[in-house]
Formats: sequence, C-alpha cells, structure tokens
Amino acid sequence: MSTQNPIFIPGPTNIPEVLRKAVDMPTIDHRSPMFGKILHPALEGVKKVLKSTQAQVFVFPSTGTGGWETAITNTLSAGDAVLATRNGMFSHRWIDMCQRHGLDVEVVDQSWGEGIPTDRFEEILTADTAHRIKAVLATHNETATGVRSDIAAVRRALDRAGHPAMLFVDGVSSIACYDFRMDEWGVDVAVTGSQKGFMLPPGLAIVGFSPKAMAAVEGAGLPRTFFDIRDMARGYAANGFPYTPPVGLLNGLKVATDMLLDEGLENVFARHHRIAEGVRQAVAAWGMTLCAARPALYSDSVSAIRTPDGFDANRIVSHALNTYGVAFGTGLGDVAGKVFRIGHLGMLTDVMALSGLATAEMVMVDLGLPVTLGSGVAAAQAHYRHSAGQACRRAA
Amino acid sequence: MSTQNPIFIPGPTNIPEVLRKAVDMPTIDHRSPMFGKILHPALEGVKKVLKSTQAQVFVFPSTGTGGWETAITNTLSAGDAVLATRNGMFSHRWIDMCQRHGLDVEVVDQSWGEGIPTDRFEEILTADTAHRIKAVLATHNETATGVRSDIAAVRRALDRAGHPAMLFVDGVSSIACYDFRMDEWGVDVAVTGSQKGFMLPPGLAIVGFSPKAMAAVEGAGLPRTFFDIRDMARGYAANGFPYTPPVGLLNGLKVATDMLLDEGLENVFARHHRIAEGVRQAVAAWGMTLCAARPALYSDSVSAIRTPDGFDANRIVSHALNTYGVAFGTGLGDVAGKVFRIGHLGMLTDVMALSGLATAEMVMVDLGLPVTLGSGVAAAQAHYRHSAGQACRRAA
Amino acid sequence: MSTQNPIFIPGPTNIPEVLRKAVDMPTIDHRSPMFGKILHPALEGVKKVLKSTQAQVFVFPSTGTGGWETAITNTLSAGDAVLATRNGMFSHRWIDMCQRHGLDVEVVDQSWGEGIPTDRFEEILTADTAHRIKAVLATHNETATGVRSDIAAVRRALDRAGHPAMLFVDGVSSIACYDFRMDEWGVDVAVTGSQKGFMLPPGLAIVGFSPKAMAAVEGAGLPRTFFDIRDMARGYAANGFPYTPPVGLLNGLKVATDMLLDEGLENVFARHHRIAEGVRQAVAAWGMTLCAARPALYSDSVSAIRTPDGFDANRIVSHALNTYGVAFGTGLGDVAGKVFRIGHLGMLTDVMALSGLATAEMVMVDLGLPVTLGSGVAAAQAHYRHSAGQACRRAA
Amino acid sequence: MSTQNPIFIPGPTNIPEVLRKAVDMPTIDHRSPMFGKILHPALEGVKKVLKSTQAQVFVFPSTGTGGWETAITNTLSAGDAVLATRNGMFSHRWIDMCQRHGLDVEVVDQSWGEGIPTDRFEEILTADTAHRIKAVLATHNETATGVRSDIAAVRRALDRAGHPAMLFVDGVSSIACYDFRMDEWGVDVAVTGSQKGFMLPPGLAIVGFSPKAMAAVEGAGLPRTFFDIRDMARGYAANGFPYTPPVGLLNGLKVATDMLLDEGLENVFARHHRIAEGVRQAVAAWGMTLCAARPALYSDSVSAIRTPDGFDANRIVSHALNTYGVAFGTGLGDVAGKVFRIGHLGMLTDVMALSGLATAEMVMVDLGLPVTLGSGVAAAQAHYRHSAGQACRRAA
Repeated sequence: MSTQNPIFIPGPTNIPEVLRKAVDMPTIDHRSPMFGKILHPALEGVKKVLKSTQAQVFVFPSTGTGGWETAITNTLSAGDAVLATRNGMFSHRWIDMCQRHGLDVEVVDQSWGEGIPTDRFEEILTADTAHRIKAVLATHNETATGVRSDIAAVRRALDRAGHPAMLFVDGVSSIACYDFRMDEWGVDVAVTGSQKGFMLPPGLAIVGFSPKAMAAVEGAGLPRTFFDIRDMARGYAANGFPYTPPVGLLNGLKVATDMLLDEGLENVFARHHRIAEGVRQAVAAWGMTLCAARPALYSDSVSAIRTPDGFDANRIVSHALNTYGVAFGTGLGDVAGKVFRIGHLGMLTDVMALSGLATAEMVMVDLGLPVTLGSGVAAAQAHYRHSAGQACRRAA
Repeated sequence: MSTQNPIFIPGPTNIPEVLRKAVDMPTIDHRSPMFGKILHPALEGVKKVLKSTQAQVFVFPSTGTGGWETAITNTLSAGDAVLATRNGMFSHRWIDMCQRHGLDVEVVDQSWGEGIPTDRFEEILTADTAHRIKAVLATHNETATGVRSDIAAVRRALDRAGHPAMLFVDGVSSIACYDFRMDEWGVDVAVTGSQKGFMLPPGLAIVGFSPKAMAAVEGAGLPRTFFDIRDMARGYAANGFPYTPPVGLLNGLKVATDMLLDEGLENVFARHHRIAEGVRQAVAAWGMTLCAARPALYSDSVSAIRTPDGFDANRIVSHALNTYGVAFGTGLGDVAGKVFRIGHLGMLTDVMALSGLATAEMVMVDLGLPVTLGSGVAAAQAHYRHSAGQACRRAA
Repeated sequence: MSTQNPIFIPGPTNIPEVLRKAVDMPTIDHRSPMFGKILHPALEGVKKVLKSTQAQVFVFPSTGTGGWETAITNTLSAGDAVLATRNGMFSHRWIDMCQRHGLDVEVVDQSWGEGIPTDRFEEILTADTAHRIKAVLATHNETATGVRSDIAAVRRALDRAGHPAMLFVDGVSSIACYDFRMDEWGVDVAVTGSQKGFMLPPGLAIVGFSPKAMAAVEGAGLPRTFFDIRDMARGYAANGFPYTPPVGLLNGLKVATDMLLDEGLENVFARHHRIAEGVRQAVAAWGMTLCAARPALYSDSVSAIRTPDGFDANRIVSHALNTYGVAFGTGLGDVAGKVFRIGHLGMLTDVMALSGLATAEMVMVDLGLPVTLGSGVAAAQAHYRHSAGQACRRAA
Repeated sequence: MSTQNPIFIPGPTNIPEVLRKAVDMPTIDHRSPMFGKILHPALEGVKKVLKSTQAQVFVFPSTGTGGWETAITNTLSAGDAVLATRNGMFSHRWIDMCQRHGLDVEVVDQSWGEGIPTDRFEEILTADTAHRIKAVLATHNETATGVRSDIAAVRRALDRAGHPAMLFVDGVSSIACYDFRMDEWGVDVAVTGSQKGFMLPPGLAIVGFSPKAMAAVEGAGLPRTFFDIRDMARGYAANGFPYTPPVGLLNGLKVATDMLLDEGLENVFARHHRIAEGVRQAVAAWGMTLCAARPALYSDSVSAIRTPDGFDANRIVSHALNTYGVAFGTGLGDVAGKVFRIGHLGMLTDVMALSGLATAEMVMVDLGLPVTLGSGVAAAQAHYRHSAGQACRRAA
C-alpha cells in the first residue's frame, strides 16, 4: 500500500491537507480560555451539520461504537425494550451491544442489502400498546452493505403508531455525507464519528441529544461514567471537559465543520451523490450489481459490489492492496466474500474516484472476472464530464 | 498563551517533534497488514515500559478515565467491594466512578498531600477475612497534589494480610516518568494514557492486565462493550481492532516506546528526577513548601506548591497565562486556591524548566508574594549545573 | 485545482510524505556539528545518484538555472566558445544565459522534438583544431519537448574528435529519473535541482564537478561570488556553508537519496520507464503522437503530446485545471499551443498515472477532440497490469 | 542540541508554528493562477514592511548573499566605484563580493563595534566631485558585532555632499526587526532574507529596488542571469517566475508579512526592543559589556557580548551546545574568540529569552567566569515584569 494513492475504504477517509494541519497542534492548556474557543465552535458546527437547533452535542475521545454506548447508557435501564433491524454488520453490532448491556432487543432480521422495514416497525410499535419499547434503533447508512435507510419513514412509523419511543440513529457514515435532519425527523440521539463525513482521523464519538433524550438521562439506570453526558455537559459549561480532551481532534472538528458549512451542506451532499453516481455507472458498465437491493437504497457514501457466485470477493481487496497499493473494503459478516466495497465519502474528487475504478478494473481482469478494461472508467467519465459541466455552468 | 513557550501543566506534555510527525499520518487501511506492523510493536513497547513479561496490554481510543472504567468493568460485578484511598482529585474521581458503577467502595480518607496509608490498608485487608474486597485501587502519582505513593508497600500490605484482592494502579502520571514495576509489584491492572509519560497528544487509554486480572474477566458482571477487553483481544489476534482504531496515535505510541526504550527506562527516570529536583530546589529558595507532606512523597512528574494562607493560588495560574503566556496547573478540589502546580514530566530540558521557574518568579513578584527574582532560578541552575556536569562526566 | 489530486506537471513533482516531513524541520544551529551530519550524507548520496566516484558535489540555495550559472561562471571566461544545441526551451535558456555572460556560443539549431545532433557535434569539434571550444553544453532531457538525448554519444563525439572541451550536462529532469553515468560518460559538470527526480520542493541547485572541471576553476574569469564553488568547498570542509544553508531542504536531500539508493537506482529507472510506457500506450490509443521524433528519444520523465493542427493545446491545460482540478504542463516556446505535457517523474504510482490519463480523456472529449473515453486508460491499464504482474513475479 | 529548546543564534530564528505550516505545502502548479495569489500578496507585504510605496520587490530562491549580488550586478559595471565601511564580518563579505566582481571599493575601515562613519562618508562623497562613486553600501545591522548603524545619517551625508550615488542597504538582520524606512531614507536597494525578521526557514533573497535603482538596470554591465531582475519582473507581470519558484517559502512570506502587519510594525519593533533590552540588562548585571561601542549602536536583533581578555569566547558556545543543548552565536572574524552572541530577533518571548540567559549563566559559571547564577536572569525579569505590565496596562 502506498500512502500516495487515495484510499477507498468506507472510512476513515482521505484527510484534506488543511484538516491534517488543524489536528496536528502543539499542546495548549486545556483548562485555559483557549480551549473554549476551540470547543464551542466545534459543537455549534456539528449542531448545524445535524440540522438541529435543539440538540445538545457531545464529543467523546472514542469512536462511533462509543457513541452507541453513550446513546443507550444515558437513556435506558437494564431490561428496557428496544426495537432494531439487523441488515448488516453495523446494525448487528449495535444490537449485540444492547444485549450485552441487558436490554431486551426486539430484532427484525432483514436480508443484507435491504433497508429498515418501516412497515414492520409500524406494526410492532402499534402492537406495543404498553409502550414497553423505549427506543427504536436505526442505522441510517449500513456501511457493510452500502444501504441507506429512510429515517423520515421510521419517524412516520412511530408517529402513525402514536408511540413515544425515542429514535436513535447511527449516522456514522451518513452524517455530513448525505441529508440528515435531526429536528425534522425527530431524531432523539444521533451518533457519528470523526473519521467519515468529517474527514478527520478517527478518535471522536460525536452525538447529538434531543430535549426528549436529555429528559431521559436522569432516569437511565445503566451505569456509565466515561460516557456520562452529565459530566460532559458540566464540563462544557465551564469551558472544559471532565477529563483530558483530545484538543487537536476537536480543533480539526471545528475546522471541518467550517469547511462543510462554507461549502454548503446541500453542495456537500450533491458532491457525494455525483461521485457515487459515477461509481454506480462504472459498476453497471462492468455488468455487476450492488448489494443494495434497489436504487432507493443506494448509499452515496459507500458501494458494496456483488461478485459472481463462487468467486471470493476478498481476493479483490487483497490483490488491489498487494499489487497496486490501493485499499478497498472487504465484505463483512453475511456478505463476507460476496462483496467488495468502494468507499466514496469525504473530500473525494472525480479524479481520485476514477483512479479507484481503474484499479478495480485491473484487479478484476487480473483475477479472471469478465470485466473489460476501461469500461467502468469510461462510464464514470461520461457521468463526471456531464456533471462537472453542469457544475461549471452553474458557477458561471 | 503562546504556543512557543513550553507548557508546565502536568500533562498533556510538550510533544517532541518526532512524535508529532509520527501521529500526523495519512489514512491507511486499518484492516490491512500495515496496521499490525504498527499495533503490535506499540503493545510490546508498552509492556516493556510496564516492566512486565506477563501482562496483556490493551489500548483504547479514550483517556485515563476510560482506562479506569476498563479496569473495573472487565473484572468486577455490581456490589463488589473495593478498597481505596482518597488523597487527591484523581483518586477521588476513581472512587466516584466505582460508586456510580454500583461497587461498594471502602474509602480511607487521607489529608491531601499524604500518600496511600499502607498500614491502614493492611489492617483493613487483614480484617476482611471473608475476602469481600475484590480489588485495591491505588493512585501511584496523585497529579492533583504531586504525591507519589509506594505501590510496593501496597503489595506488601496485601501479602502480609494474605489477601487475594487484585491490585489496580492508576499510573497515568507515573508510568514512563518514574519507576513502575508491574510484575514485581504484582499489579493486576495498570492504567495510563498517551499524554503524560508517553509524550503524545491525548486520546489513548492504555491498560495492562495481569493473568490474574484476565482470569477475572469472564466472571465480571458489570456491563461493557466499548471497553470490553475480550473484543479488543480478539481484534488484536487478527491484527485488527473491534472498531476503528486511532492509527496515528498508535503509531505515535510505537515511536514513543521506541524513544523511551532507546534512552533506557532508568535514564528516563533519572532525567525526570533531575529536572524535578531542580524545581524543588527553586521552591525551597522561594521559601515555599510542597503540598506533598514529606520528601518520600515528592513526585518527579509534578510539583504542587503551597501558597501563603489567604492568597488565592489560582491568581498565579491566570496571571502567568495572561501576562507571560505560560500555562501552569491550578489546584483542584480540596487544594483549589491553595496550590499551583508545575508539571515537569515528559521530554523537558533544564532550559525549559528554568524558563518556567523564571516565569513563576515574575508572576509571584507581580502579585506581591515575598519572592526574590532570580532566587529559584539560581537554586535550580546550581542543581542543573551540577547534575549536567555529572552527566557529562559519565558520558566522557 | 485541488491539492488532493496528483500533479502532472514535469516538476516540481508530487512530494512523498516522508520527504515533506524531512524538509519541515525546526531551526537548528547550522554552525553546529548537527549540520555536518545532514550535509555530508546528502552530498555523498547525490554522488552515488550521479554514478560518480570522482565528482565534487555542490548544493546551492537556488534552482537548476542557478546550477547552469554555477557551471559556466566557475569554469569559463568571457569570450570563451561553447557548443550547444537548441532543441527546446530549456536548451534555449541555457544558451541565452551563456550569451548574456559574454560567451561565444556556437548554436546548432534542431527542430523541437529532435535530440542533440551528435554527428554534427563531431564535425564541429573535429573542425575546431584550435580548440576554441571550451565546453559542450548538453541538455539530457529537454523538459519542453519530452526528448531524451544520448549523452554517451556526445562523449563519443568528443572522443572521436580528440577534443579536450569539457562536457556540461543539464540533467535537471533526467537525474534520478533515468540512467545517468557521470564518470562513464565523462561528464564534467552535471546540473540538477531538488524538485524533479529528488522529489523535493524547489529551492536547491545541485551540481557535480569532475576533476577536470575543478581544475578549470582558478582560471575561470567570469565573476561570481554567490555561485563560487571555492567558497562552497571551503565551507563544506569546515562542516559549514559560506552563507546560511537551507537546512530543511538539505535534510530532505539526504532522505531522498537514501530512498532512491534503498530502492536501487536501476529499480527507480525501471519504475519511471514502466509508468512512462503506460502513458505512451495511452497516447497511441488516443491516435495521437509525441513531440519527440522517434522512440529512441522518448523521455521517461515527461511526455509532450502533439494536438491536431489548428487546436490550441493550452486549452487542454486550462480546462483540466478549471474543471477537474488537475495540472498538466503547457507547451513552451516553439511548441506553445501545439503540445500539452504530462509529467510522470518522481514517486508516481500506476494509480496516479491512470487518474491523469482519465482526466486528459475527459478534457479532450469536452473540447471536441476525437478521443474515446476510456481508450487511453485501457491501454495503460493493460501495460500496468502486465508489468505489475512481472514485478510481482520477480518479488515472489 | 535539542530541538525543544529555543535557539539563540542571530538567525535563522525560531519558526512560529503557523509559518512552518505555511511553508510545508503540497506541490501546486506554479504556472497556474494559484501561484499569483501567493506571489503578489507576498511582494506587496514586503513592500509595506520596507515602508515603501515606490519600490519594486523581487524575491529569489537564494540568501541574503544572493541579495547583495542582485543589488550590485543589476546596477553597476566592472570598474565602478563604490563606498563602504568594514565594521564586521558581513560588511567585510559584501566588500569582498564587490571586489571579486571587479568593482573599485573605497573601504573605510572601522573598529569592529563601531557603526558607519557618516562624517567620513560625507567627506569622501564631497571630495568625489567627479561622481566616480556610483553606490554607497551600508550594513544596517552588523550581525557579527550587534551594531546598528544610522541609515538616515548616511542619507544625510549623501544629501549634504550633493552626491548622486545610489544607497544600498543590507537590512538582512534589521528589516522586520527594527525601524527601516526605504522611501524616507532614500534607500535604492534594500536587501534581506527569509530567515531573520520574517521568521521563515532560509532560502529566499528579498530585495527592494527604488525607481532610481531600476533606472540603472539597463546600463549595468555586470553579467547576471539568475539574479537578473528584468527576467524576474517579466515573470511577475505574467504571474510567474523565470524559473521554478520556491512556492512554499513564498507562501510562508505571504503569511509572515500578514502576521507582521497584523501585529503592526511599530509593535513588532517595540517587542524586539523590549526583549533586547532585557538581554542587555542581564549583560550589565553580569558585569560584562557589549561589542557595540555605545548605546546608540546597540542592536535590537542581536547582542555580541565581550568576554574577558584571555578567555576564548567560543568555549561558551560549544559548552552551551554540548552540555545544555542551546545554540548561541560565536564571534566571527576580528572578534572571533572575543565575543559570543545572543540572537533575540523574530518571535521570541520573555520566557524564551530568560531561558537563554539562564543557560548562558550556567555555562559561564561552569567555565569559571565571575558571574553569579541568577543575576542576569533577575535583571531581565525586572525589565520584562515592568514592560509586560506596561503592555498589559496599554491593552486594558
């Protein structure tokens, strides 16, 4: 692997130069006023990216997994029921975490490649007249399968059922990549990390809590200290942290949200869609299909591409790394060996995307798959040419 | 505050150039073999720094506080009894965490400035014939008071009492600063972070588990997922991590342990002692005293300096920052306003230390304290001259 | 232009991460012994890259142009005759410099796209029985046209003519890219810079002087102080410099030569050839031709590609920059508007090269040129696949 | 030597973090419009720092020595007479350069420690009724002796003599450190470098040419190409450079001038004076004297401190480096072994300065000089306390 080539794993992403420099800070006194000037703009920036005016944002030195734990331990008690779908590795892991924390998870299994079954959710919630279910867990973007679920529809399911459960959304690989509307969709806890749409190195769990979720905190019986948002809130109120904050990453988060908001969130989303669509055109040109069952589920962050039956998709990933120094993502869990993944989130350019597609073509031909060199690249070029032209005309 | 001046908070420390560059990495594929080549040497390096051949080392994207939570949640169950002393803010916080996780903490309160009362521990452990106490918590270096406790003596107390409790040590501000002997002292869980003796930015909890602590993991009833060392161990065995690893910090940890081991741990400790002793000579020259009750308790990582009755010590810290751009540590908890702290851990030179002392003198004179300009500097210079000379002669 | 995309100008090149970090140094005392530990290995490394055991290497804070001036002012006097070919912008500029310094330049004009006419040189040198010609100037790689000349043949011309003139070679865009043999070819002054094969930022002129060139120094009448190699030699002998040295760039040069020699010069050259050949396959697939008149002249550093008559080649360069954020090189001088250039020197990977080719295709289609999307990419992929496979087999 | 300690050589200076990051750039296309957006603000910034509205500024990949060569070769012809004083190593070197370029230098030797003898200059200029003297060379700050000369007085000498000679000023270690008024003083060529008041790594010669100097360019007979400002001017007019520009350093220069102008030049000068005055108070407390003959000549950039007769001052520099890892400057030329130098230019803080003084004290005591530990530090502290207080009051 060469650090000169772009990376096509579905996060951590390629880190823009300006963000590397923002993170690489000399030590400052995190108990001095300098720290507040980093922390608060970072928190405010995240709030805007979440499209929320009401949320309280908390940032932990941790990862998205820590963000999930923050969500459940601050709002729930052992024995509480939660509703969730398992449609990929990351939704599976969140369910597993809930079970290990003694929650009673009602799991709706979906085939991997499907999204959240909102009709089924509505039935279950409607049937739960006792309101045993305290929270609904939704993975917005299943990174393992490249599936985007419809969070607005999950909200509608709750509303139609007249159910008061909280809505927790794993937006790790959606937030800052495509549209996320915390307030409009009534999301109670939104979870993400630093290393996806925020384009930073890993090391931060980023969560937003709605007023309703905040109200649940005092009654929550699950033990927590490191992830207790009450300590965090008290720290923030005093321009501090309950323990040593990761100052450099927080400074990076401040700069990253500035970058995203300066570009304009809708432009960021359009850019992700544009790059993703080029990748999908290439996949079609190769005669291959996505793991995601239908276009409505296609993710603009990552594409999981099915390989022919009997072919071990992991060979693509290892051959790409060993022969061409390029990193793609392997399939995980149920789709291990059946898909390989191209991450296309963060500050990717057309040019970078094309180099990934060109590499994938060489790899697949090397391994005997019936792909024509240049075919996917040409399809993506046609898309990028067209859409770049549009962008230019708009800019003119 | 100027980022050009050295920093004198008791961690995070000044970061050596080579470590800043080691941390500031482009993204690599953390599921590729490149990652194992970073992870395993880092873990091995930490093990050597802990002076352990038996421990299993785990590193989390977190902080020392997360390391405490790792220690207790992986080994204990709600209702378990633990024994601890409260002799400063950090020992207090660990006790608080235990209580919030439902442990039954037998607290021995000490005046702040004292160390762990090992005689009293021995009495309590001897009296606990039912072996209700499952773990003894010991803060090796109380960062709040600049007190070093005697961990070997805690081990002797356990041994004399014939008590099987595990020994958990918070070595956040001692490990890699002064002598720590995990195996010899029978430490079962050692906890530290990246931002003290390892001289890195904050963001890592680093823990070592003895075989005895490992044996307790399956029976531990406290819920945990993010901090579950079983997931972590499975990840490491596959050259991976259970979630996205903080690759840059891990690379920094690899390079930091190389630096420490290349210098030689005993030389690292001698260097810390030398710098600390100069600071103490300056304090004496100022006619002031340390918070630590007697020389045997003096910490080589941080000195907490008592200010005269009726004087608010925090004024020193804020004046130093505002007027001279230098960061010292404030007093915390019981000693807030009564002490200010000079951190002298990490890769500090004589020259840097002298600039901190010179600044403290200006500040104290500015604020009307009866200190003579140059007096502490001269005392420290005399010490550094003498000891630098020795070093030179040894090298010759 | 995005700093995320690779750059395809014929130097400065993309800078490897490790070299950026080597250059970005804190200030050290350049009169201390630390400096010698940077300087001398850098000079020794350059000597090996020049394949010379006899040369003295000098490095100036300057550029290749300063290197030319170093060559002539240290060896020649006003009125001296020199022999040179003009076959591109850079050979033209060197000639211009000689004329401005009062030298009598015998210019052999060649059409741009041709190399050095060694037969004609032999005739001229043979005819110069009075040995008026003191130096022969040879541009090894004409960066403007992508033409590689045959320096060994220039040496043969000198030898056959029995002519004692010195041989000065501009190797700015050949040295460390493809084969250069200072001693074997009897090169008397070799000139290069930091920003091409050495992959560093611009800022250094790097020259090697043969014993014969050194012998000419005292008699040289052209005035010089900044570029006087006698001052430089005295400085080096005392581990210093005659003025403030560019320490960071010199440290980069040390690390760059280590990288090149660790890889092995022949491997470096093979890598350049391999990448260049893929680009040439793409050009052929586009139905286009190089500016270089025939394969023996094809440069492995840069390809200048002819565009159809009546088409302004500069439009390709500006459109690529404005629409896709990618930098190619424009044509210069006689071939301005007639060619565009793809630089492929330095640490370029297959993957980076393919992204440049894919971009060039989009640009040319956008501008109405009869190029098929994906065609050049496919041709290059076929070459890279094949040659990567060979590399793998060799490595296995 | 430790890169953690501040450096006290009289340039290159300690480099502020933001400037290191500004210089450390990925490669951009220097023929693209991006380059003009770096170049022109840098040139404009320099012009403001020179306090000139009329000058044309040129920046070369070179050093201050190259700046001298630019001054003379672009304006003079072999045989031209120039007037200069030799009062230190740098004025000596400029004279030497002139002689090596065939100029007829009328040298007024001064004892080292004295400034430019403006009365004597006036006599010579008055006597030169034929106006043979084409240029007067003035070293504003003799870095070797820590002497500041009075450039306004040199201008008065020219004016009183009614002499049309141009005035060339070496401001390498004065510009951006203390007051420099190109237009008001009628300076025709001002010369400096990147590594002193601009706080950047070495690698740039920076020159300003007055309209009068520009008018001399076409008639200047000295050969030059690399340093020919006509090529440079043509390049700038086309947003380019006549050869490969050092883009990162130019970007650093842009940011450095922004920093200086944002702080305010008068504040920058006051800061330098304040720090320098503290150093001078320390020297007095040590019972030592400066090389500069009287206070009017004291430099705010560097202090050269005389050591007792019979004591080799170089021992201070080597002992400081070897024992304490701190770099001071040695004496050069006539004052070699008789002085050591403390550089205090650039972004130095009180705290950094005090650490240098504390080190010097230890070194001198180690070497048996009759200096009292802490004495100089105390004197400087008293000054910094007082002046820091004033700064605070002004800010309040």
